[in-house]
Amino acid sequence: MNTILKNDLILRTLRGETVERVPVWMMRQAGRFLPEYRELRKKYTFFERCKTPELACEITLQPVRRLGTDAAILFSDILVVPEAMGLEVQLVEKVGPILPSTIRTKEDLGKIRIPEVQEQLGYVFDAIRMIKQELAGEVPLIGFAGAPWTLLCYMVQGKGTKTFDEARRFCYTQPEAAHILLQMITDTTIAYLKAQVEAGVDLVQVFDSWAGLLGPDDFSAICLPYIRQIVEALKDEVPVIVFAKGAWHSLPLLQATGATALGVDWGLTPEFARQLTGNEVVIQGNFDPAKLYAPIPFIEKEVEKMLQGFGKDKYIANLGHGILPDTPVEHAQAFIEAIKNYSWSN
Amino acid sequence: MNTILKNDLILRTLRGETVERVPVWMMRQAGRFLPEYRELRKKYTFFERCKTPELACEITLQPVRRLGTDAAILFSDILVVPEAMGLEVQLVEKVGPILPSTIRTKEDLGKIRIPEVQEQLGYVFDAIRMIKQELAGEVPLIGFAGAPWTLLCYMVQGKGTKTFDEARRFCYTQPEAAHILLQMITDTTIAYLKAQVEAGVDLVQVFDSWAGLLGPDDFSAICLPYIRQIVEALKDEVPVIVFAKGAWHSLPLLQATGATALGVDWGLTPEFARQLTGNEVVIQGNFDPAKLYAPIPFIEKEVEKMLQGFGKDKYIANLGHGILPDTPVEHAQAFIEAIKNYSWSN
Repeated sequence: MNTILKNDLILRTLRGETVERVPVWMMRQAGRFLPEYRELRKKYTFFERCKTPELACEITLQPVRRLGTDAAILFSDILVVPEAMGLEVQLVEKVGPILPSTIRTKEDLGKIRIPEVQEQLGYVFDAIRMIKQELAGEVPLIGFAGAPWTLLCYMVQGKGTKTFDEARRFCYTQPEAAHILLQMITDTTIAYLKAQVEAGVDLVQVFDSWAGLLGPDDFSAICLPYIRQIVEALKDEVPVIVFAKGAWHSLPLLQATGATALGVDWGLTPEFARQLTGNEVVIQGNFDPAKLYAPIPFIEKEVEKMLQGFGKDKYIANLGHGILPDTPVEHAQAFIEAIKNYSWSN
Repeated sequence: MNTILKNDLILRTLRGETVERVPVWMMRQAGRFLPEYRELRKKYTFFERCKTPELACEITLQPVRRLGTDAAILFSDILVVPEAMGLEVQLVEKVGPILPSTIRTKEDLGKIRIPEVQEQLGYVFDAIRMIKQELAGEVPLIGFAGAPWTLLCYMVQGKGTKTFDEARRFCYTQPEAAHILLQMITDTTIAYLKAQVEAGVDLVQVFDSWAGLLGPDDFSAICLPYIRQIVEALKDEVPVIVFAKGAWHSLPLLQATGATALGVDWGLTPEFARQLTGNEVVIQGNFDPAKLYAPIPFIEKEVEKMLQGFGKDKYIANLGHGILPDTPVEHAQAFIEAIKNYSWSN
């Protein structure tokens, strides 16, 4: 029972249609930089915010109201999946995620299970239903999940690091256990995303935030087969955006999974992203979030360069990674406005 | 008054000559993973080890003796340069570098100066002279410095992070101050590397460890002009290897600086590195250091794939980033041996 969307620009773009302008949203727009979000953060822990549908709904809607983005993205965290699988996850402000118990051996796999998502993650679907009602068809709602490799990184390492050496060590020294773990995460993620769709999300994004830590061959062995399974399971239901940060080398392989759109970071030029994908797939990205600290005229100039590079169609404007916490709100607004107001007749 | 080198394989490779086998050394081989180094680490602080020529000499020689690498690399740290420029640097074990006072504004540039390298960094040159004497021509000695952008990262951020957001913010919001700082670092680095050459190093490597945090255009504006100055100032004296980690997109531009060799990480295949550089420049790299945790037969298979990908000539085998601290010594040995013993007649 879907409401008809008033703004379906992003969905038309994802279908490959010629559009009047480029759609835009921002990674991590749900919260993080808005003062109204920081107020909620003072009162509630991260998991309280995630697990209370009213709060998740409010935080999801804040940036849509404030910035007029062309999509809302569910407020949640990729680590709700490891938690649902049985590993405790602590999200410590200013420190990041801590998983006190980790997977380092085949035996450790006994600590986790493929959960019943409706039981373990019901709060997410409750939030989605509430958000859809509140949105009343204003803009589409994006659901999301972490890619299996990226979730493995946290489940093995137990915390955020620059290079996730223990996660790479685990994959190279215990490939059998690694593939069992990756498949367990994949099965959970497919069920989780399907339930998000059932609850009402209009499209989904898979975040492989640590894909760039693997070389091309290891990406093909460790990331790609599982992303492919997720895409295949979901793509007939909703558009699927895959964002494998840093894995520019694998854009053609990701394109071949049948993903509806591919996210890219600012490590490659728009022109090269187009070249690698034969201009055939929708691309999303890739503004360096630190540039939102710069004066507004600089932002506008850089946005213009990005838009010209990607072109109007088959393109979703976004940052190349999450918005930084102390980004000035008016700079985020200027970014959105510069994209919305760009005159394509020039 | 240079001793004649007994093993000059790496220098012949850097001249583009056809060689009997591929030379090999390992980034961060000077210390870090050897038990004999860990013994010294218990007794002396990092700066004591750096600043005491006898200790720096001993640590430099340990891996050459133990592993039989084709070059020694000076034991030191890239952050001796910011320290010589006037910023206090604390190297805290298991935490990493901390710079209590940072550069965030144009006014902050008053905190630093272009130092007299002989006065401020004399201990480095003393160490080099001692090492050269001890090496007695066994293998060449590599000197090094951090690239200006990478040093700016630490001088602005004040500590290691995943993304150096403050450093990027500084460059985008205060480009004038950023370029003054980059030029000051460049001038210092040129004097520093020239003095290393005078003291006896046979080649130098410039580490731009955080180059991959910038997009191609920003790399061209922020990294490239300063690397070019360093290469131009040094390349007629000694071979210069430039390792701009993550900046695969800029290999052709780095090649055009006249650098003798370019380092690459494992984010790109050997074949693609060759394709980007037209097979004309010496390439160094690119083994994923986490693979040294894996069983030795796996290491040997992966080494073979790497060697086949790069080919025998114009190639220096190395890791794609620093060796990880708890790498088993026999695995590091297996890596070196696999490269040395590879039969190119196959």
